[in-house]
Amino acid sequence: MANVANRVSWSGREQAEEDGESTPLLNGASNRQVRMEEFSSSILFRIGQLSTVDLGDENQELQETDLSSTVVKEILHNENLLSLKYESLDYDNSENQLFMEEERRINHAAFRTVEVTRWVICGMIGILTGLIACFIDIMVEQLAGVKYQVIKSNIDKFTEKGGLSFSLLLWATLNAVIVMVGSLVVAFIEPVAAGSGIPQIKCFLNGVKIPHVVRLKTLVVKVCGVILSVVGGLAVGKEGPMIHSGAVVAAGISQGRSTSLKKDFKIFEYFRRDTEKRDFVSAGAAAGVSAAFGAPVGGVLFSLEEGASFWNQLLTWRIFFASMISTFTLNFVLSIYNHKPGDLSNPGLINFGRFDTDENSYKYFELPIFIGMGAIGGMLGALFNALNNWLTMFRIRYLHRRCLQVIEAVLVAAVTATVSFVMIYYSSDCQPLRENSGEYTLQLFCADGEYNAMASAFFTTPESSVRRLFHDPAGSFNPQTLGLFTLLYFFLSCWTYGLTVSAGVFIPSLLLGAAWGRLFGIMLTTISNDSISWADPGKYALMGAAAQLGGIVRMTLSLTVIMVEATGNVTYGFPIMLVLITAKIVGDLFIEGLYDLHIKLQSVPFLHWEAPVTSHSLTAREVMSTPVTCLRRREKVGIIVDILSKTTSNHNGFPVVENSGNTGQPSRLCGLILRSQLIVLLKHKVFVERENLSLIQGRLKLKDFRDAYPRFPPIQSIHVSQDERDCLMDLTEFMNPTPYTVPQEASLPRVFKLFRALGLRHLVVVDNQNRVMGLVTRKDLARYRIGKNGLEELCLAQT
Amino acid sequence: MANVANRVSWSGREQAEEDGESTPLLNGASNRQVRMEEFSSSILFRIGQLSTVDLGDENQELQETDLSSTVVKEILHNENLLSLKYESLDYDNSENQLFMEEERRINHAAFRTVEVTRWVICGMIGILTGLIACFIDIMVEQLAGVKYQVIKSNIDKFTEKGGLSFSLLLWATLNAVIVMVGSLVVAFIEPVAAGSGIPQIKCFLNGVKIPHVVRLKTLVVKVCGVILSVVGGLAVGKEGPMIHSGAVVAAGISQGRSTSLKKDFKIFEYFRRDTEKRDFVSAGAAAGVSAAFGAPVGGVLFSLEEGASFWNQLLTWRIFFASMISTFTLNFVLSIYNHKPGDLSNPGLINFGRFDTDENSYKYFELPIFIGMGAIGGMLGALFNALNNWLTMFRIRYLHRRCLQVIEAVLVAAVTATVSFVMIYYSSDCQPLRENSGEYTLQLFCADGEYNAMASAFFTTPESSVRRLFHDPAGSFNPQTLGLFTLLYFFLSCWTYGLTVSAGVFIPSLLLGAAWGRLFGIMLTTISNDSISWADPGKYALMGAAAQLGGIVRMTLSLTVIMVEATGNVTYGFPIMLVLITAKIVGDLFIEGLYDLHIKLQSVPFLHWEAPVTSHSLTAREVMSTPVTCLRRREKVGIIVDILSKTTSNHNGFPVVENSGNTGQPSRLCGLILRSQLIVLLKHKVFVERENLSLIQGRLKLKDFRDAYPRFPPIQSIHVSQDERDCLMDLTEFMNPTPYTVPQEASLPRVFKLFRALGLRHLVVVDNQNRVMGLVTRKDLARYRIGKNGLEELCLAQT
Repeated sequence: MANVANRVSWSGREQAEEDGESTPLLNGASNRQVRMEEFSSSILFRIGQLSTVDLGDENQELQETDLSSTVVKEILHNENLLSLKYESLDYDNSENQLFMEEERRINHAAFRTVEVTRWVICGMIGILTGLIACFIDIMVEQLAGVKYQVIKSNIDKFTEKGGLSFSLLLWATLNAVIVMVGSLVVAFIEPVAAGSGIPQIKCFLNGVKIPHVVRLKTLVVKVCGVILSVVGGLAVGKEGPMIHSGAVVAAGISQGRSTSLKKDFKIFEYFRRDTEKRDFVSAGAAAGVSAAFGAPVGGVLFSLEEGASFWNQLLTWRIFFASMISTFTLNFVLSIYNHKPGDLSNPGLINFGRFDTDENSYKYFELPIFIGMGAIGGMLGALFNALNNWLTMFRIRYLHRRCLQVIEAVLVAAVTATVSFVMIYYSSDCQPLRENSGEYTLQLFCADGEYNAMASAFFTTPESSVRRLFHDPAGSFNPQTLGLFTLLYFFLSCWTYGLTVSAGVFIPSLLLGAAWGRLFGIMLTTISNDSISWADPGKYALMGAAAQLGGIVRMTLSLTVIMVEATGNVTYGFPIMLVLITAKIVGDLFIEGLYDLHIKLQSVPFLHWEAPVTSHSLTAREVMSTPVTCLRRREKVGIIVDILSKTTSNHNGFPVVENSGNTGQPSRLCGLILRSQLIVLLKHKVFVERENLSLIQGRLKLKDFRDAYPRFPPIQSIHVSQDERDCLMDLTEFMNPTPYTVPQEASLPRVFKLFRALGLRHLVVVDNQNRVMGLVTRKDLARYRIGKNGLEELCLAQT
Repeated sequence: MANVANRVSWSGREQAEEDGESTPLLNGASNRQVRMEEFSSSILFRIGQLSTVDLGDENQELQETDLSSTVVKEILHNENLLSLKYESLDYDNSENQLFMEEERRINHAAFRTVEVTRWVICGMIGILTGLIACFIDIMVEQLAGVKYQVIKSNIDKFTEKGGLSFSLLLWATLNAVIVMVGSLVVAFIEPVAAGSGIPQIKCFLNGVKIPHVVRLKTLVVKVCGVILSVVGGLAVGKEGPMIHSGAVVAAGISQGRSTSLKKDFKIFEYFRRDTEKRDFVSAGAAAGVSAAFGAPVGGVLFSLEEGASFWNQLLTWRIFFASMISTFTLNFVLSIYNHKPGDLSNPGLINFGRFDTDENSYKYFELPIFIGMGAIGGMLGALFNALNNWLTMFRIRYLHRRCLQVIEAVLVAAVTATVSFVMIYYSSDCQPLRENSGEYTLQLFCADGEYNAMASAFFTTPESSVRRLFHDPAGSFNPQTLGLFTLLYFFLSCWTYGLTVSAGVFIPSLLLGAAWGRLFGIMLTTISNDSISWADPGKYALMGAAAQLGGIVRMTLSLTVIMVEATGNVTYGFPIMLVLITAKIVGDLFIEGLYDLHIKLQSVPFLHWEAPVTSHSLTAREVMSTPVTCLRRREKVGIIVDILSKTTSNHNGFPVVENSGNTGQPSRLCGLILRSQLIVLLKHKVFVERENLSLIQGRLKLKDFRDAYPRFPPIQSIHVSQDERDCLMDLTEFMNPTPYTVPQEASLPRVFKLFRALGLRHLVVVDNQNRVMGLVTRKDLARYRIGKNGLEELCLAQT
């Protein structure tokens, strides 16, 4: 773990091919003085202004924190930390001359071809995502089938002759081994594949580059990991990871090549930039949701609610198309697999079963009850999140060694199996066998023709447990079973989320909610005198599931549609909405949603929808980083190389200013150039000799930049001779000549709005003569948030 | 009609309280030379640069068109026209000192109160919109009931004793009179209430101020108009107008006062600006859809798909809340009205009836059939739109006198009744009476116990016709009846849309589609040999309805959800999506959607989602209006009054520049001030005497601006004495000190993106020293679009 004051070296991070967008200051407002001195001997003129207005006390305080490196250990992995290791993505096209020339060359017909290509790619994303979902589903079903068969026969054997502890041992060992493999794969091959991947995709769509998140290797590890963790009997679902898988598929297909496999199909080259990739990733995420829940509209809404910022109608239609194709593919393949070709009515990985209800499915007086359930869901969700938050902090602090992570996963698997076994063993809830009592019913100590109801909740995949809680007739579960199950499963699933395994939280949440919802329904029937027909426990299980899931993840619109599409019933749409909105409002009183918590714990500079409401008192002047390293329009190669090699102090974008001589005076902005562009320029040695100003090498094309995208080589790998260092480089053609700018007086909300709406990475702050005064990046904005005492400022650190 | 070269005077337009944001140039690129001369004797220094680069030929050509005022009559009401009479709305907050001081004063708790208030307002919007929907529904049902009863008894009487022409006369006269009243109300009291109002709301959300569109008077006229036109038997629906009604309700409630009624409740003053109003209007439109179709999620999506640009999660949740409340209110009131309190399962004005289907509701091989139906719907929709487009052009050109409009409406009503009657009379499609054969069955010449099937399509409200086509068992309609009905209804509904009555096109489209869809289903059954069970005509009616509506209005995502929510069945979601996307793609090959066509015909400067794809060759320099009238930071009152009084040449926003003396040199930008703000300043006489620079009047508050919003007085109403003219006005406090700017080299797509994403009204174009070079407004951007020969430029005219 890096020390804040003594940062990790640039070279080390460059080798990992991830160069951080480190702001030159540890705290934007702090120790500018110190920095100024440090840079005073810089090879290049720097532009800066010491803005100490209104920052008196705070400034001093922060400076102290910063200079005393002994207390640094304390703030590591604090909630109030913003990591400097995350780069931003370029969601604003660099409209340099090369780009503009290409765009101008393309006529209307060619643009139509591009548009058609986009649709084709979305179709392919849908198909592939659907196929992956099928693969996961079939593998889980087959492997879990084998596992349950083995254990069931073992239990059946030992039930008769005694010695069930062998069965327990077998069960626990089997689960532990399977989970261990899954955890090993994730921990040692691709740690970013852990969890559901939804927070990571949220960050990606928000504009933060999470290393390795959309790579092929991640996809492979994710798919294997999720199969193993579901089969291993953990309290997890396979739906969340589908969203991540869809996103990876999208990022891969849209580029027409695989950098990992070193295979370039020479297609879709037009889409090799962050802006286009983001659009496809939204489609992929939507296709993932769509495949997971059989909810194409829900998928689109998920993608928009969690990811998008600028709503574009055409893009939405393409996303919709991808979702549709994805559901259809899954449906088609699974219907053949299930020997029911032509049956299109059960889409999605999770199938809640159809809620076929009579017309008067709910009454007015049930609405307040549902709202109450929403409130309970919100509170339970908040408790879940708070516990998980605490647990995750603990994990980050103490369990950062990979083998420890694997051991924890194995432990959880063993405990899950043990708890399940003990619960089943001591349960006396025997139910008569019915036609639809499930595949793996355990008789245990029940009479012949009966089965153990507790086992039907534990001894199966969580998906089928949910289905049973929704649809089994009244009386299938007794209240004690449900209560105990809720209690234990709550802690188990809370412990499980955040383990180093690939797994989602959707299904455990639904299961948990369905259990207490059903319990709630049963209690209602008991309390009211008459044997009422309205309190169908299945209906209350559905509402409970919605409330619990809503309380944990805090989605409303998309979740409503997902639930409606997954249950195949619109009638419950309205109560589900009520429940979800209540759960969201109640939950938000206590703590954030689970995904947002995890994003915060990762110290990701995530930009929310709006700037903090009370941030009008801040202006760009106070927020920006300064001084900024600027380049001249014609710059010496040596200076560029030195700047790029510098480990601290530099952003990933450099304002380009007019050649005004090294007077140290701020100069007029004329463009903006990215680190990655400079690297490509250096690599191709696009130099001009000082004497005759003639081009040494041939002209660079846009293709050269696209070929290098997205893994630009580190500066160290580029050799520049001493002669070349004296050459000049003309940046005019390659810089973005029209970067967005704001004046120094612009308020933070105004800067934020511009930044967020346009997906910017660098925003140049200029004075009233268009001279560069500073640079605003994502971290400068993400730093501010509403805390208990009004506006808070997070610390920046190289964690 | 105004002559283009010789514009309508400013004062005339000011009296109508609608001051246009007239760009100083007739054609941005044209006759700058002429203008320059015209303004050379201007009282104020002007900033400008003659940018004739790259415009050689085009420039000359346009100049010729422009100078020959004889050809002007020809281009009036042309499709390629952009009207100058529409103002823009201010969707970008003017962050002047007053505003910032207020925002800084408000602490976190106060912001929470504001947020809660927003939710409360959304709830109120939902309730009121729901109640209005109830009122319309009940009134239509009662009045139509009386009408049909009268006619039915008359027909029954004359069927026996002959002389049915009396019945025809009665029917036609009744309809004509009812429609005449409806049309009179609309034409003479509030013409903007004509049609469905959806194009107008789209424009409002896009940022165009359509005069009177969200006023109370409009709402009253709309409600009366829609009741009368539906009762009058026109081929119209009452659903579209609900969207407009919801929007007016939202705009009214959120302001906490009614300017028309001169009643100020002194609440919600914080929301008295365009930005906030827009957000509430989105919620109102969503609530309207929600009430119309019982589709809360569909309403949110409609609002987003048709209106929004920047997707904000919090806003979406509020919109969702308003939609939910609206459906619930409607449902609640109607269930009491229908004597079934507690029955919540039939929400919405239109109720498609529940599609309760068995599991295998459709087969794989039906999907291509559905796609085919989508294509047919797309083509029929395109035909409908093309005919209606032609008709609307004709109407704008020749039927602009109000009495002519009323006469046309009456004519259509009489023709509709006659056609219906003749169809029923000559129809020999007798069907046995069933339990659910509808309320007003006509026996006519059918045997006892039978009824005339044609009558059941014509002699009822369109809503119940749709329901019957969806749900009546196979064999209820014979193919000839359906074919003839489709043909006649196509032309009737096409003729009807665009009449000067309040009415929507949703239901006629659905009815049309349901008719040919059912016909299609019957034909399928006939073609295939076996009496197959899969080709349920009701299912095909549903698909046909979706295809036809999709082909006409070209919505996909929101329409899918609306259809799913209105049918209460998710199973058909996937085929409906397929149908809608196909209809959209096929239709777009021929002509735009109906709403977009009407927006275009109104010459509204509407900004689409993206700049035309081939517009990269244009830069801000070519697009901007120049010269721009600028004000100095301290300006003479006389000069300001003169500028505001000038009828031509001025925008509604003026860049404020540093006081650099009247050198004629371009000066540095330091702010932007709106015409409306200047008006308020003049009204309150916030002057500084030239000598002692002391304030004459007390300090102006933000409240003064809010009180004047949105109907700012015309400049003529403000008296400024000769002494006062010599005073100075200090704009520093009131101007927006940080307007967004772009450099001259920025490409059109880049400018467009900034403008659209942030909802700007004025975008200042500056050179590299931050000196004002020009101003980009909505019209400068909306002017460019893709035509048959690539990029086209529309003419600007004062129509």
